[in-house]
Amino acid sequence: MKKNKIVGQSVRRLDALEKAMGTATFTTDVTLPGMLYAKVLRSPYAHARIVSIDTTEAEKLSGVKAVATHKNTSREMFNTAACMVLTVKELEPVWDQNIFNQELRFMGDEVAAVAAVSEDIAKEALKLIKVEYEELPAVFDAFEAMKPEAPVLHPNCHEGKNIPGESVKIPYGDVEKGFAESDIVIEKTFKVPIQKQVQMETHAAVAQVGVDGKVTVWSTTQTPHPTRMILSKVFGIPGSKIRVLNPPYIGGGFGVRIGCSAKAEPIALALALLARKPVKFVYSRKEDFSASDTRHGGFITVKLGAKKEGTFHALDLRAVLNAGAYCSFSVEAPGVLGAMGLAVYRIPNMYFHGHSVYTNITPAGAMRGYGNPQAMFPIDSVVDMMAAELGMDPMELRLKNIMKAGDPWFLPYPCGSSGLAECIEKGAKSVGWERRGKVNQTGAKKLRGFGMGVGTHVSNAAPFCVDYDNAYIAMQQDGSIFLTSGVPDMGTGTSTSLPQIAAEVLGVKFEEVSISFADTLSSPFEIGSHASRTCYAAGTAVVAAAKDLRKQILEFAADVVLKVSPEKLDIADSVVYVVGEENKSITLKELGYLAHLHLKQFIAVSSIVPPNSPPWEAHFAEVEVDTETGKVTVIKVAAAHDVGTVINPMIVEGQIEGGVLMGIGYATTEEIRFDAKGKQLHNSLHNYMLATAEDAPEIDAILVETKDPNGPLGAKGVGETGLVPTAAAISNAVYDATGIRFFEIPLTEERVYKAIKERG
Amino acid sequence: MKKNKIVGQSVRRLDALEKAMGTATFTTDVTLPGMLYAKVLRSPYAHARIVSIDTTEAEKLSGVKAVATHKNTSREMFNTAACMVLTVKELEPVWDQNIFNQELRFMGDEVAAVAAVSEDIAKEALKLIKVEYEELPAVFDAFEAMKPEAPVLHPNCHEGKNIPGESVKIPYGDVEKGFAESDIVIEKTFKVPIQKQVQMETHAAVAQVGVDGKVTVWSTTQTPHPTRMILSKVFGIPGSKIRVLNPPYIGGGFGVRIGCSAKAEPIALALALLARKPVKFVYSRKEDFSASDTRHGGFITVKLGAKKEGTFHALDLRAVLNAGAYCSFSVEAPGVLGAMGLAVYRIPNMYFHGHSVYTNITPAGAMRGYGNPQAMFPIDSVVDMMAAELGMDPMELRLKNIMKAGDPWFLPYPCGSSGLAECIEKGAKSVGWERRGKVNQTGAKKLRGFGMGVGTHVSNAAPFCVDYDNAYIAMQQDGSIFLTSGVPDMGTGTSTSLPQIAAEVLGVKFEEVSISFADTLSSPFEIGSHASRTCYAAGTAVVAAAKDLRKQILEFAADVVLKVSPEKLDIADSVVYVVGEENKSITLKELGYLAHLHLKQFIAVSSIVPPNSPPWEAHFAEVEVDTETGKVTVIKVAAAHDVGTVINPMIVEGQIEGGVLMGIGYATTEEIRFDAKGKQLHNSLHNYMLATAEDAPEIDAILVETKDPNGPLGAKGVGETGLVPTAAAISNAVYDATGIRFFEIPLTEERVYKAIKERG
Repeated sequence: MKKNKIVGQSVRRLDALEKAMGTATFTTDVTLPGMLYAKVLRSPYAHARIVSIDTTEAEKLSGVKAVATHKNTSREMFNTAACMVLTVKELEPVWDQNIFNQELRFMGDEVAAVAAVSEDIAKEALKLIKVEYEELPAVFDAFEAMKPEAPVLHPNCHEGKNIPGESVKIPYGDVEKGFAESDIVIEKTFKVPIQKQVQMETHAAVAQVGVDGKVTVWSTTQTPHPTRMILSKVFGIPGSKIRVLNPPYIGGGFGVRIGCSAKAEPIALALALLARKPVKFVYSRKEDFSASDTRHGGFITVKLGAKKEGTFHALDLRAVLNAGAYCSFSVEAPGVLGAMGLAVYRIPNMYFHGHSVYTNITPAGAMRGYGNPQAMFPIDSVVDMMAAELGMDPMELRLKNIMKAGDPWFLPYPCGSSGLAECIEKGAKSVGWERRGKVNQTGAKKLRGFGMGVGTHVSNAAPFCVDYDNAYIAMQQDGSIFLTSGVPDMGTGTSTSLPQIAAEVLGVKFEEVSISFADTLSSPFEIGSHASRTCYAAGTAVVAAAKDLRKQILEFAADVVLKVSPEKLDIADSVVYVVGEENKSITLKELGYLAHLHLKQFIAVSSIVPPNSPPWEAHFAEVEVDTETGKVTVIKVAAAHDVGTVINPMIVEGQIEGGVLMGIGYATTEEIRFDAKGKQLHNSLHNYMLATAEDAPEIDAILVETKDPNGPLGAKGVGETGLVPTAAAISNAVYDATGIRFFEIPLTEERVYKAIKERG
Repeated sequence: MKKNKIVGQSVRRLDALEKAMGTATFTTDVTLPGMLYAKVLRSPYAHARIVSIDTTEAEKLSGVKAVATHKNTSREMFNTAACMVLTVKELEPVWDQNIFNQELRFMGDEVAAVAAVSEDIAKEALKLIKVEYEELPAVFDAFEAMKPEAPVLHPNCHEGKNIPGESVKIPYGDVEKGFAESDIVIEKTFKVPIQKQVQMETHAAVAQVGVDGKVTVWSTTQTPHPTRMILSKVFGIPGSKIRVLNPPYIGGGFGVRIGCSAKAEPIALALALLARKPVKFVYSRKEDFSASDTRHGGFITVKLGAKKEGTFHALDLRAVLNAGAYCSFSVEAPGVLGAMGLAVYRIPNMYFHGHSVYTNITPAGAMRGYGNPQAMFPIDSVVDMMAAELGMDPMELRLKNIMKAGDPWFLPYPCGSSGLAECIEKGAKSVGWERRGKVNQTGAKKLRGFGMGVGTHVSNAAPFCVDYDNAYIAMQQDGSIFLTSGVPDMGTGTSTSLPQIAAEVLGVKFEEVSISFADTLSSPFEIGSHASRTCYAAGTAVVAAAKDLRKQILEFAADVVLKVSPEKLDIADSVVYVVGEENKSITLKELGYLAHLHLKQFIAVSSIVPPNSPPWEAHFAEVEVDTETGKVTVIKVAAAHDVGTVINPMIVEGQIEGGVLMGIGYATTEEIRFDAKGKQLHNSLHNYMLATAEDAPEIDAILVETKDPNGPLGAKGVGETGLVPTAAAISNAVYDATGIRFFEIPLTEERVYKAIKERG
């Protein structure tokens, strides 16, 4: 009997039809009888204290059912992002937020919220809230904020002025000795911008409180179970009495709603508890920009030492990131920046030191790549500079120095596989690397250039943070398979790839597997969709559960029906059969009913701690720089990715293509800046220069499959790697085209034009 | 540390507030965007064939979105009740129904259904459906239907004309020899009426079909998982892609919606598939009466032989029940009638033979007691007659002959406990049995009398039918407990008693336990709420899961925190402590978070086959008969029940009180009769004489706790026993008052008055 092959097939996404036909339900679609609508009053100052607040007039407005402020809501401190508790004991979460703070630390900080029978009435009520503010001195720059004269944003910063938690230090070998032994040393400081996730659906939550005190929250969270933990902490309600679910779709996330969806869930729930009615709170796009986490901007210093034959010998990496007003992931992000930055090349002596600094701007938190893009633009810029110093082809230099499977490294899990060399070879071939330096006519106004960048990443958060997973699987009485995982599908296709994995392991037909997930009601604890872990960690749990189920099925079939030892049995296309005697068989449909008559359902719950595996990636960019305008046009990106086993090629390619485009935006256009008062200058889809389909070049997503020893059926994480090396590749290509090295991104027309002018 | 005692406490029902405040959601409250409303066209004949059906005009009516008939819906045969598949192979389910049949077998049988944007339009459309019927000869009486000249209602009745499936035969000892050896033999035939469940909420279902083909059905079913099985069979959709749930409340059931809620689910789903919109179908009360299962009426013959010293020596029991038009539970119900009828007294020689017969009336199916009340009214009438023959007190005669724990019996599980003697003693004391024969003044017009009846029952359906259970339990990261069971709470309080059981086994605070159930999404297979099994079987699964969880918790606490062997630990009030060194402890709240940091959630899934245990009951009735009107007024019922361990006294007492009132209705007023054309004469709350609060006498629910070796913490089933002996007790009391023995119930004024008149 031919075994059905499901993994590796681009089966149609199970969410495709619903999304294409407009019947897919998102949080904004959730409507409950008697539901109220919430609006939030936000701080007009970057730093201020509420002297007094009077909500009397607002409460009197007809249709207003509740007004929430710091005076009538929980004072329990929390952290909207704190679902990934660091397993490093010293780095426990920084609890520095209330739902409503009396001290307001950025323009947009929550002052009060109104629940009313319509959005218009809620908006009207906001105007009736009387607030007396005492404006306080504000600081916006990370280095300024560390100075003794800077205002204190949060107490208990024991490591340094306004530094949340502990800084991250990674020593490896002897870095001082390493530089002393190096023939060439290059040290440069880079500046990286504040980028925004701009996920399709803004933050939203609907909260309902039963008269029995049980709570249900539909929301855009990437992490329903951790959101439940946070709500349980903030509101003092047993976790078992809170249900958090996606409804079931989420319009993207890119890290911005790990933990809560900004404060959508706690604000909706606070109002629902006050009003005793269901409350819906949907962020406007402007609120989403100004009052939810961004990608950390900051300064990164790279010092690289090499032997003259081209062997890297020492690397010192320093990062100072701008945390903004609250901690969010500002302790963890520098850690990933350092760990990933140091993991790409085989260097015997390394050191990393990084931390964040509180300032009075919108908080920074998790965003796809989570520190890694901030590391690789500087590192791979310096690697290119080193190649120039050494007179080597940058590709050759990288091939000489990259990590290989089995190489010793400092990370607490083995480098079990690496297809990076193959990625480099295939990417170079795709972009036509041999054309480098040969394409520009003398005196041309539009100059072509080629650049590359490489990188790795994690496939989940372990062992740095709490990361474990459970999956539940049960065979129904007709042999069909029901699977639950608590992990959301925020558009990444896991509601298709997890059933593919289950079908493959079990040998059942793909269409017989159904998944229901992202609901704390139906699933055991699951830490959520982040850290490229969704398919990897939830998939590992699915493999474990499916293997257990398969064993139960085969043992029953062997014992009750086929009268052979279970080892002689296999399952294909939902039929259990004796290997080599394929006429001896029973369909799972028959078997499921037989088990029912034998008073048995096959059920398995897996509990796993996912190992970690490094995905690898090499991006090759061809760009064209218009020397008369400074415009950088990306012509092509060849994005070769070692993703381990490919579960669903269409989905993996989609992840890479999306990542590359986000990387192009990071490299060329996207940035949030602030005015002198701390007001965002880029807070809408009009003035934030998001890379869109129009900006998309030819993207060649090349899949390199190293069957990873750890991942589910050999798969690795792929959600974040798509943009890790893109900025370096583009900046290196701009250098190749123009000879100008940029130490700051994005490479806007203004910046590039100015540099060309300055050079003359 | 004092162990918290939760079991045995009348903790407030968790559903109480929602129900009292009107916020509890029932199926009729489910409203979905774009939802349509269904109405059904029903057969105007007791027996007819559809010659032609034309729905063209109905489909043209504005607002009509689908019309379903036998021509455009599934032809897969099913049985709305077939969730309890008999484990006896010969008695597999009788599949004798389609959603819409072309041959109509009772007045009310489904001809067609319309889905429209309003109920009014749907009703209007029914009038536009043109049907040509060919009327067929009909038969209404069970004995008539077995005659050669009777019409054939269903093919494949191999045992005899119109007998569905196999008749049930229970041989035990040598009954012929037993009668030969008896000194006194009494043989009488009794007639029992068709009773209706008249549960508060009529049948209802809302079906939704996603564009991805996944189905969700909210309904009043008592058995979500088996309903899913039935829908999967009928519609050919994998079970894994169908979700069935209560929303979450059900307004009663009493057996009438084991399997599907009549045809609410298949009709709603058939229309939803045709219309591609959600469809709600709510039965009117008249439809609920005429087109959903009743309690079987029929004829029962009891032949009892006794030795002259009062020892029962032989019992022959025969039953011919009226199945109505479709089989439903008509194969199983005679089995329970026989098995329970033969289980009460210790008699060495017994025989039972019983079966049902198809007729052209509303089908009979499951109703609280399920054959047992039909057995015990006749048997305990004859026992009273035997006492009179022997010149013994009926109570003494019973005490001499009842089964005792450990006695040999014919049932396939041991009689592990019996508190029946204690029930008799306590019931007699409560009613004042010593007043019997001493209360009536000579010549009084209103005569008082005392009577008693006894009985047993099952605590679940095993091993006769498929009966197994699973429960899922998980500790949350704050130490609170989340429990799921697929079993509905149809008003019986299991959403309170199951958490009580979990809290007791675990040693956690009751308020830290939350249950979510009756949803195939969140729970493994569960066969549903019936056969008095809800608290018993689901509770057994909860005990098993909670014990497993407790073990995991103690092992972790012992290993990671308290550094002792797990055997030295106990849990009380949500604190794990070292027994004898109670300062060495950790709260479950701390432990839950610690486990999280150790990458672990405590999760347990239990899979159990519930054993069975006999509950026992003795009812003592005091009645007053008005000899001038024939009116029987029940003054008091002392209902003493051996329920094993009492989980929640308030809930158990409520079950008994409700059962007694239903038994009073069975005994005195409730009956559905049909006219000569097969039309129900009692099909509304106006003309069906339901026993209501106004008819309730003083009811003394007496709880006798024999700690049963099998049940969860020693508990037994209690859902059905409340009405098993009531009719016998009342009829015996009427005999005691009047000297008239009745062989037919209900004891309506008309019947009693006529008997008094006839006697003169």
